[in-house]
Amino acid sequence: MENNTIQDVVDELLTHSDDTNTQQAMIEQLEQDKSDADLALLLESLPWSERLSTWDQISDDRKVAVLVEMRLDASASILENQDENRLLALFTGIDADTLLELQDSLPEHLLENVIGRMDEEQQHRYSAAQQYDDEEVGHWCDHQPLVVPAKTKMKVVTRLLRRTLPPHSHVIYLVDSRGNLVGAARINRLFGADPTLRIAEFAEEDFPTLNAKDDIYAAADKVAASGESSLPVVTDGGLLIGRLDMGTAYELQSERAESQMMASAGLDEDADLFAPVRKSAQNRAVWLGINLMTALLASWFIGLFEATLQQVVALAVLMPVVASMGGIAGSQTLTLIVRGLALGQISRANLKPLLNKEVKVGALNGVLWAVVIGLVAGFWFGDVKLGVVIGIAIVANIVCASISGIFIPVLLDKLKIDPALSGSVILTTVTDIVGFVAFLGLGSLLLLG
Amino acid sequence: MENNTIQDVVDELLTHSDDTNTQQAMIEQLEQDKSDADLALLLESLPWSERLSTWDQISDDRKVAVLVEMRLDASASILENQDENRLLALFTGIDADTLLELQDSLPEHLLENVIGRMDEEQQHRYSAAQQYDDEEVGHWCDHQPLVVPAKTKMKVVTRLLRRTLPPHSHVIYLVDSRGNLVGAARINRLFGADPTLRIAEFAEEDFPTLNAKDDIYAAADKVAASGESSLPVVTDGGLLIGRLDMGTAYELQSERAESQMMASAGLDEDADLFAPVRKSAQNRAVWLGINLMTALLASWFIGLFEATLQQVVALAVLMPVVASMGGIAGSQTLTLIVRGLALGQISRANLKPLLNKEVKVGALNGVLWAVVIGLVAGFWFGDVKLGVVIGIAIVANIVCASISGIFIPVLLDKLKIDPALSGSVILTTVTDIVGFVAFLGLGSLLLLG
Repeated sequence: MENNTIQDVVDELLTHSDDTNTQQAMIEQLEQDKSDADLALLLESLPWSERLSTWDQISDDRKVAVLVEMRLDASASILENQDENRLLALFTGIDADTLLELQDSLPEHLLENVIGRMDEEQQHRYSAAQQYDDEEVGHWCDHQPLVVPAKTKMKVVTRLLRRTLPPHSHVIYLVDSRGNLVGAARINRLFGADPTLRIAEFAEEDFPTLNAKDDIYAAADKVAASGESSLPVVTDGGLLIGRLDMGTAYELQSERAESQMMASAGLDEDADLFAPVRKSAQNRAVWLGINLMTALLASWFIGLFEATLQQVVALAVLMPVVASMGGIAGSQTLTLIVRGLALGQISRANLKPLLNKEVKVGALNGVLWAVVIGLVAGFWFGDVKLGVVIGIAIVANIVCASISGIFIPVLLDKLKIDPALSGSVILTTVTDIVGFVAFLGLGSLLLLG
Repeated sequence: MENNTIQDVVDELLTHSDDTNTQQAMIEQLEQDKSDADLALLLESLPWSERLSTWDQISDDRKVAVLVEMRLDASASILENQDENRLLALFTGIDADTLLELQDSLPEHLLENVIGRMDEEQQHRYSAAQQYDDEEVGHWCDHQPLVVPAKTKMKVVTRLLRRTLPPHSHVIYLVDSRGNLVGAARINRLFGADPTLRIAEFAEEDFPTLNAKDDIYAAADKVAASGESSLPVVTDGGLLIGRLDMGTAYELQSERAESQMMASAGLDEDADLFAPVRKSAQNRAVWLGINLMTALLASWFIGLFEATLQQVVALAVLMPVVASMGGIAGSQTLTLIVRGLALGQISRANLKPLLNKEVKVGALNGVLWAVVIGLVAGFWFGDVKLGVVIGIAIVANIVCASISGIFIPVLLDKLKIDPALSGSVILTTVTDIVGFVAFLGLGSLLLLG
């Protein structure tokens, strides 16, 4: 089983879904061979009834770690269907960092109970993290970095180091008596140090830090750019409250990419593959509703040309082509600009040369495809004037799409709205309307009578 | 200037683009305050003429490092416009890892010259990496990990450690006399070790490894999942050829996200914000051409109903609504499945319950929005039958979109085609055609005469 993929296991479990003995044996084997993340993936891949029965068969000492690895809606699907007393037992002895990761999928009443049963130090850490919202690094930083008072003797430090080292620790953080960060010492520099010296002797005082209020994604990028395996997180007052390591930075980045991909279809990043039908339908309805309004708006513009359409039905046949070519060209510019905004490439002064370039690119491609489409339409309907009309409409729509592809994301960004989410809806509304109006309007002028 | 963003600098440079003295002073200050990545971002954000003049003002000893941080098309834009002899001087003493990162933006002739001038060891490393294609971790692994023969005495090891430690190194790799990996020793465990012992005494023999032929993105995920700061890369024969560290893993992941975002609009991930108009137009034309074919195909289906459209022009006004509602609903299912495929959540046996769920979600939203749109259309055109026709067409198209949203990405994945790239083009072609045919076909049956 060690080499089986989780997909194979899912297939096995679903084909033996009535045979609890076989299932039990499989899960036992899995627990030996697979990581917590693998088990989490397995649970996410199962429909609810099989998910819950598989969950029951996972041994209690792995359960919390598996939950932490699951996406929110999927872990909530399990937690909502368990006996509260059993869950309380499961969460006994949980630490603050783990609880922070799980809290959004815990029923509120249970969460309060779990917090009440944590020891004082963990309660303190938990409530300290709660002072920051979940976009801030203070909320998510790891609370167990390697920290010693700056005046600690090297003898003690090396004993500590030999015993244990958290992952991604290549430095020790040094604090003063108030817990404020005063520097960091690189572990490799400590070899051969005189055991009677204080570790402060080895401190780098200008070691880079993160502020607890920094945006988590920006903080992840900062850790990666620093070349260090982790950076200390301090408050405005200089108090060391934890660290952000490369492992967490990697997770954050992957979460950000996933959430952007999901958001582009109006979906929640936490959406469960097997969410209940009613809940899924509800979550998706909003996006469909927004789209309906933009589609009806476009239809309203088409409606202005009813008389024309009745006389030249070819316009009705071809109008989606004009709209969609504009949409595609615009989305290319939009995507380039959205990336540019995310990277910080776009400034006030380079918008003008950028606009200049994109309009030229649009015009060139507009003319190219206008000729092609004009010829196709002209031959198809045996009407040269129709070819000319669609050609002009295509050029106009593609050029207009290029301009919109720049201004829409830049404006949204200024308004602090994520252009990756709403940019393309607005853009295609514009390209639909411009496309329909240009094509049908020109058609009315040149083809009627 | 330290707190100025790169965007501010871009604005300054573009408004003083004639004043080389001011520019020179700015660049000098920037070189003190900003990282190589910042300078790379600055160059990427500038139109070509300003980019080249700014490049000239960057001091020679930073130039190669800045180039490495730039996206391919942007670095190529600079390299293509420099005197070859000056570039050769710049690249003197370059190491294999740096050259591997730059090679795709170097003119071929220059590349050969640079390789010819590298010392023998670097030439050897360079050609070893070339044995792997650029999707394999062997091509990209860092060739300077901390490695010692397993029989090295601790006295020597600690001296080495104290002197230098590459970033993200928390273990030392141990090799036998043939250079094969035999284990890894955690640095913190070496404190207080008897100097006369061999380091092999401290080796973990089952330390996880990457195979040189592993896919780079999968390898990055594996490093992150391991909890280690880096993993050794070995050949099939066990030879240690380098390592992949968390810094590189983070870069790879960010590159992957960027390339998927760009690919969804038919753009190259390396596309330069200020690429020449002709080149940009050419790169984007293919995607527009593919889209044109699908749009014309949809138009051809509309054309089958010309006679109907002529009699009931309201159908022409409303048909984009039917098509676009299907497209949106389908893209929601598609996105969920594309994510599921990427995560490994989708198996053979869970497709059926998934289909079951998605069809139900589609049916529920279909009926909801069919009623809304049916009412709007009925009132707008004062025609109850038209409302019924569009309602039925909406339900049919959304349900069909849900089914397509599952099968299209699953089939593409089986055919080893990235569903994130081509899935949505195929999907919207299907939803356009089904939408038009269902709506116009029903209209022909129920509204004519």
